Amino acid sequence: MKLVIIGGGSSYTPEIIEGLIKRYPSFPLTAIVLVDIEEGYKKMSIVGELAKRMIEKAALPIELTWTTNRREALEGATFVSTQLRVGGLKAREKDERIPLSHGMIGQETNGAGGIFKAFRTIPVLMGIAQDVAEICPDAWMINFTNPAGIVTEALLKYSPHKKVIGVCNIPFNMQQSIAEVLAVEPSAVRIEFVGLNHFVYGKKVLVHGVDKTKEVLDRLMAQAVNYSPANIVNLGWTETLLKSLQLLPNPYHQYYYKQEAMLQKDLLSYEQNGTRSEVVQEVEQKLFELYKQPTLDEKPKELENRGGAYYSDVACSLMTALYNDSHEIMTVNTLNQGAIADLPLDSVVEINCLITKRGPMPLTTGALPPQIKGDILKMKAFEEQVIKASISGDYHDAFLAFLLNPLVGDEDRAKVVLDELLVAHEAHLPQFNK
Amino acid sequence: MKLVIIGGGSSYTPEIIEGLIKRYPSFPLTAIVLVDIEEGYKKMSIVGELAKRMIEKAALPIELTWTTNRREALEGATFVSTQLRVGGLKAREKDERIPLSHGMIGQETNGAGGIFKAFRTIPVLMGIAQDVAEICPDAWMINFTNPAGIVTEALLKYSPHKKVIGVCNIPFNMQQSIAEVLAVEPSAVRIEFVGLNHFVYGKKVLVHGVDKTKEVLDRLMAQAVNYSPANIVNLGWTETLLKSLQLLPNPYHQYYYKQEAMLQKDLLSYEQNGTRSEVVQEVEQKLFELYKQPTLDEKPKELENRGGAYYSDVACSLMTALYNDSHEIMTVNTLNQGAIADLPLDSVVEINCLITKRGPMPLTTGALPPQIKGDILKMKAFEEQVIKASISGDYHDAFLAFLLNPLVGDEDRAKVVLDELLVAHEAHLPQFNK
Amino acid sequence: MKLVIIGGGSSYTPEIIEGLIKRYPSFPLTAIVLVDIEEGYKKMSIVGELAKRMIEKAALPIELTWTTNRREALEGATFVSTQLRVGGLKAREKDERIPLSHGMIGQETNGAGGIFKAFRTIPVLMGIAQDVAEICPDAWMINFTNPAGIVTEALLKYSPHKKVIGVCNIPFNMQQSIAEVLAVEPSAVRIEFVGLNHFVYGKKVLVHGVDKTKEVLDRLMAQAVNYSPANIVNLGWTETLLKSLQLLPNPYHQYYYKQEAMLQKDLLSYEQNGTRSEVVQEVEQKLFELYKQPTLDEKPKELENRGGAYYSDVACSLMTALYNDSHEIMTVNTLNQGAIADLPLDSVVEINCLITKRGPMPLTTGALPPQIKGDILKMKAFEEQVIKASISGDYHDAFLAFLLNPLVGDEDRAKVVLDELLVAHEAHLPQFNK
Amino acid sequence: MKLVIIGGGSSYTPEIIEGLIKRYPSFPLTAIVLVDIEEGYKKMSIVGELAKRMIEKAALPIELTWTTNRREALEGATFVSTQLRVGGLKAREKDERIPLSHGMIGQETNGAGGIFKAFRTIPVLMGIAQDVAEICPDAWMINFTNPAGIVTEALLKYSPHKKVIGVCNIPFNMQQSIAEVLAVEPSAVRIEFVGLNHFVYGKKVLVHGVDKTKEVLDRLMAQAVNYSPANIVNLGWTETLLKSLQLLPNPYHQYYYKQEAMLQKDLLSYEQNGTRSEVVQEVEQKLFELYKQPTLDEKPKELENRGGAYYSDVACSLMTALYNDSHEIMTVNTLNQGAIADLPLDSVVEINCLITKRGPMPLTTGALPPQIKGDILKMKAFEEQVIKASISGDYHDAFLAFLLNPLVGDEDRAKVVLDELLVAHEAHLPQFNK
Repeated sequence: MKLVIIGGGSSYTPEIIEGLIKRYPSFPLTAIVLVDIEEGYKKMSIVGELAKRMIEKAALPIELTWTTNRREALEGATFVSTQLRVGGLKAREKDERIPLSHGMIGQETNGAGGIFKAFRTIPVLMGIAQDVAEICPDAWMINFTNPAGIVTEALLKYSPHKKVIGVCNIPFNMQQSIAEVLAVEPSAVRIEFVGLNHFVYGKKVLVHGVDKTKEVLDRLMAQAVNYSPANIVNLGWTETLLKSLQLLPNPYHQYYYKQEAMLQKDLLSYEQNGTRSEVVQEVEQKLFELYKQPTLDEKPKELENRGGAYYSDVACSLMTALYNDSHEIMTVNTLNQGAIADLPLDSVVEINCLITKRGPMPLTTGALPPQIKGDILKMKAFEEQVIKASISGDYHDAFLAFLLNPLVGDEDRAKVVLDELLVAHEAHLPQFNK
Repeated sequence: MKLVIIGGGSSYTPEIIEGLIKRYPSFPLTAIVLVDIEEGYKKMSIVGELAKRMIEKAALPIELTWTTNRREALEGATFVSTQLRVGGLKAREKDERIPLSHGMIGQETNGAGGIFKAFRTIPVLMGIAQDVAEICPDAWMINFTNPAGIVTEALLKYSPHKKVIGVCNIPFNMQQSIAEVLAVEPSAVRIEFVGLNHFVYGKKVLVHGVDKTKEVLDRLMAQAVNYSPANIVNLGWTETLLKSLQLLPNPYHQYYYKQEAMLQKDLLSYEQNGTRSEVVQEVEQKLFELYKQPTLDEKPKELENRGGAYYSDVACSLMTALYNDSHEIMTVNTLNQGAIADLPLDSVVEINCLITKRGPMPLTTGALPPQIKGDILKMKAFEEQVIKASISGDYHDAFLAFLLNPLVGDEDRAKVVLDELLVAHEAHLPQFNK
Repeated sequence: MKLVIIGGGSSYTPEIIEGLIKRYPSFPLTAIVLVDIEEGYKKMSIVGELAKRMIEKAALPIELTWTTNRREALEGATFVSTQLRVGGLKAREKDERIPLSHGMIGQETNGAGGIFKAFRTIPVLMGIAQDVAEICPDAWMINFTNPAGIVTEALLKYSPHKKVIGVCNIPFNMQQSIAEVLAVEPSAVRIEFVGLNHFVYGKKVLVHGVDKTKEVLDRLMAQAVNYSPANIVNLGWTETLLKSLQLLPNPYHQYYYKQEAMLQKDLLSYEQNGTRSEVVQEVEQKLFELYKQPTLDEKPKELENRGGAYYSDVACSLMTALYNDSHEIMTVNTLNQGAIADLPLDSVVEINCLITKRGPMPLTTGALPPQIKGDILKMKAFEEQVIKASISGDYHDAFLAFLLNPLVGDEDRAKVVLDELLVAHEAHLPQFNK
Repeated sequence: MKLVIIGGGSSYTPEIIEGLIKRYPSFPLTAIVLVDIEEGYKKMSIVGELAKRMIEKAALPIELTWTTNRREALEGATFVSTQLRVGGLKAREKDERIPLSHGMIGQETNGAGGIFKAFRTIPVLMGIAQDVAEICPDAWMINFTNPAGIVTEALLKYSPHKKVIGVCNIPFNMQQSIAEVLAVEPSAVRIEFVGLNHFVYGKKVLVHGVDKTKEVLDRLMAQAVNYSPANIVNLGWTETLLKSLQLLPNPYHQYYYKQEAMLQKDLLSYEQNGTRSEVVQEVEQKLFELYKQPTLDEKPKELENRGGAYYSDVACSLMTALYNDSHEIMTVNTLNQGAIADLPLDSVVEINCLITKRGPMPLTTGALPPQIKGDILKMKAFEEQVIKASISGDYHDAFLAFLLNPLVGDEDRAKVVLDELLVAHEAHLPQFNK
């Protein structure tokens, strides 16, 4: 059983290795191959050496190697995970800085920045999916690359490979935080999620099958629970909003419901510390310094400040569940198939699924609650347009994607920011430069 | 924890008692009340005494009583099961005999007979559901009364009680038989069911998560597996049909795909042995003779000939799963909610569900396979019309229900049989005699 | 402006010529080309000479020619009409005789016969549509070839030519007959049609915008109106059926609602006169004798016995309306586009449309009435399967089409008749003999 | 034939009277009754006297009266038009001023102002519809009261009267302006409209049935056509937007696509001239001075500056078409019924309809173009929430309506403006003060 980690030079890799070691008894991998591009080889070697030390310490018969030859790596793969960043943190910096400098939310997975991340990422992932379909067609592709929902929909609709699942740590974080505040085991908490990646809501919170939604909403109103990850500020939720929604918003919803306040916060933080990307670059540098130490043989605690906590945990749990036909319920990005009645069958949604050997089987949620129906339908239409533009490379398709995004809206602003980002990212947007 | 069994005088009751005794550790009932109408009191007393002996033998602290006072019985109930037959086996005899005597399929849950069973049953069940909603609104109502799918839809759409689940033994039987022929544990087999009660198909057969559909279809073609229950003849499935369907039909599908042969069989059997009801009446009489024996303290083996094998097992498993929030997958009749994309959200379908404390959560199945789409949509339209007529008591509504049924079809035949059944069942059809 | 009539050797051609002459002022054709296959050349010449005499008599500057070179004929065409019969009346004879000889309805457009007509026709029409798309892409293709609805859906879904409209004389006949019995002008009558070709219902009859549906249903119950065309017997409609449906059935519905009586009638007629095809062959022979007479310069009255009355009238009216952007309401076979809410957007339905220069624009009819919903959905699923089998030539696809047809049903009967028809029509079913 | 004009004291009434006089030959009214509330009696008398002089001048046998007794007026009515403004222009002033003073678009039918206009209007219109349903159930109710789409949906869904049609002058204006710029007769131009009131798009422009969409878009890009009514500024449309949309936006779309620029314009205009309402109040005052002149016996030219040009023309044309079963195509607000495939059947949409005696019959438009799908679905969800809050009077329902509106968005701003408007309009919002 072989796992190929594409983007293996990522600073997150030690977390995934830790997760795989922990799960070895039920998920007995025989080989792990890290894959990265030429520019990432040095970082990948550092991470690879650390990973080797971790496996050695655990005394497990897993062979770990690294390479820049993706196609070779894919031979015989059972699972392929994708966790890459086209253009690296330098590109993310532009996604954040350029919109902010025009008084617009600048965030790596939402708004203008998220759109450009999709533009850069989708063609690359499409290439990977093509290779997977050809070389190891039975392999499950686990995508954590953001914007994870949009990327997964692009692959499931337009790539030849149909065994693709998108994951995100947000639903998992929410479950963990709520379990903590209610002082129960995380496994006792089930949240009925409905929506799209980074635009998902919790309809109900059940603890041992009993409805505790009201209680959790009360805690949220009282600011007694904070499930924002490290990379998103938590402004807290107002009583008025929560009593109107009667649903659990996710941290990213602050960009939509509290657009003004979030913008001010982000602008302030930008002035003081530069973009989030710059902060992260510094964190990364320190992490790699740590990784290099030949005595280090475990995931360093410092990685938790990186922002994507639990991401790897989610991915490892998912692979283990798939392998064991475990019938656990997990929240993943997969084909809707009727789970959300108002969306097309072939849309990708973030939804509770039964995880089986043959893939995730969504649980139905019925019609969308009226409080969020309009926003989710609009967001899906936006996502479809982003995918269209990512593939076509057409200027007007890209403009329309901007126009449809609720964090962009105004056409004059849209044009200025779009034009600037197209120039800034030219090197990574071959489809727009045909 | 209290279970009320409505139709408690049924000959099946010992099976359900056996099931409850077996499951006591995980389903610790404190009280069971059998309820029946005045005419059934004597039979209920016989069954009640036997049930008491069974519980005594098991040395369990379950209090078992019986009564004809339904409303009193419902007080404090946690579960209510309904397994009644309005008009008894004498009414069933008419449902079978009258259509057969006009050269039409005469069957208790399909065709003309099934329609009249619905006409008699729905108003009675509606009354029970009203009582439940009023007296024990938190109780789950587990309906096994046939036509189970139609009755369940009537209750979920038009009664005030919304915690109703319909069960049938067919999916369970199919799983058991297939496990047997594949020589694996039943729990290792999962069939992806899609459709309506008595019109359900198996899309895939998975054994430990691995697709074995082709293998099972091959066995069916070779007549190497027979999952017909005692009350339905097994004519076997042709290679042509199975290669065209590429799905597992259920035994009742023989009435539709092999209408001619089934009719001939049934006519022959009718000439030789009278109706199935008459056969069953004899079986029942013998069973009650057995039940009366004061030394009998277990379910007698002879009950297995009765035809509804596993019915009670299914119901007991379901109640245990609900009580324990077990997250098992079971095939029940519940609101569609998008599980079958082509049917309305509020249709009742027979579908795989995750069983939770808050009820069954259907797993999505996507769009109906084209092989069966037309038939299932037509059957659902028929079912809706049966419910409409059951409530309205309007002659033309009833005629239309006949006309929409694929086993009736022709309008001339429809009228003759409808008119005769209306007269024959007059006593149990108050809504048609306003 | 040029019209190409494919199947120009048909005995109906004089009717279409008459219609074109009558409409010349608003539909000023400059050229008509009759096209037929080699075997039909002689008949086409006879018809062509007659048509020339008719045009000459009318003193119109329309050039009429005939040819077997279809591609040449299509050059510069504005309209293309298709009215052909693959295999001729001999093939129809088999479609009628073989099912009847097994006690099954044998009809040229419904049931087993209709399925085989589709199997023979669709590949040929697909070839024509390909030529049209290539040679005269702006031309409207007006298809009267039966089964017209199925053929039109096949072309609109799978051929490269998207300007295709299917026509049938049934809605027109119904309007004419009802106008007559109500003693008003046909143009004052509008019937709100809903359904599929040969399975269309009238929801409302409006006379000068006023609802007269009840009145018309009363006349139908009293057998005071008969809108059956010459080729379909009229058994009359029962009060019970009409009071249940509350809609106007079309003559073909007798095959479904009165299957038994129709079968008996058809069997009797078959014994007495042979198939309908044989009757028609005799009529045709006499017609061609008439056509040959060099003094004949108008459509002979005898053509009216042929069965397809008004067909050409409907086609001529439609072409005139398209040409003039007339915004008349006509009942045609076209893409649903939401007109019948329960059917896919890309299904072909028979529906009232506003006829514009850019094609028919359907008027919405909302959800299907519950009385007919199931049957129409099932019929559409059947039609989709017929198209699939027509193209694939796969035996099991064909078997499934048989199984889904309400006039076939039983699988044993299906197989016998299917196998016999496959052998009988071998010469015209290349796709099944790959 | 009797027309009741509710809100008869409106300054627009002379326009509608003019329209009725002009159409008398095909729309022979015998009686017109103006109805208004007590506070409007004086204005109504002035308008009434002028209307009488106009009818006298035309020498038509139409009896015109006025009253404050609505129920009496409705007796025997054939048509009822509603053109009222709950709270008058003073209320409109608040709808405009309060949002603007918080830096938010303040407009009478869009955004916060439009929401409050709906809150005040829907309960009043509901009362009128109840009277109509009771007193003159066969009468057509023609609603021009804004927000016309939302009001019409509220009536069609929740009032007992089902013969309600909403009208707006925007589609008519667009047709007129385009006809002018293309130098053709307005009747030669048909625009295929799709969308919602004040959020409608033109999909195609046809001139004599020929597609001229590209040409019109080019004119719009070149700023060569301006179809904004007097009350909406025209900022012109950019090439980028139009090439992306490939559809004709309506003037109100400027609030959405050019939110920033419109806000700046409106703020500037507010500073310079006060609210639009104040401007209009002045215009109105002058109009009534004119109306009072006993020599005036025609609609004064000055009315054209009032902003709602063509409104009455649209309403008069519609009533004439209904009366004559004219089968004209008009763009009205009516039940969707499948015309826009993505919206519920019972949504009210602004769509091209065939106007018949039995009401408007929508023409299908198929699926929404992807460019606008998300926005239209979101806008409809918003409208549904406005209706819900208008009826419930619940604070959180109202807050949610604000949150769902794209011109409000941010929750902090929403709360401030909502709270202030609730206080300001207290007198006209009984449902919020229970």
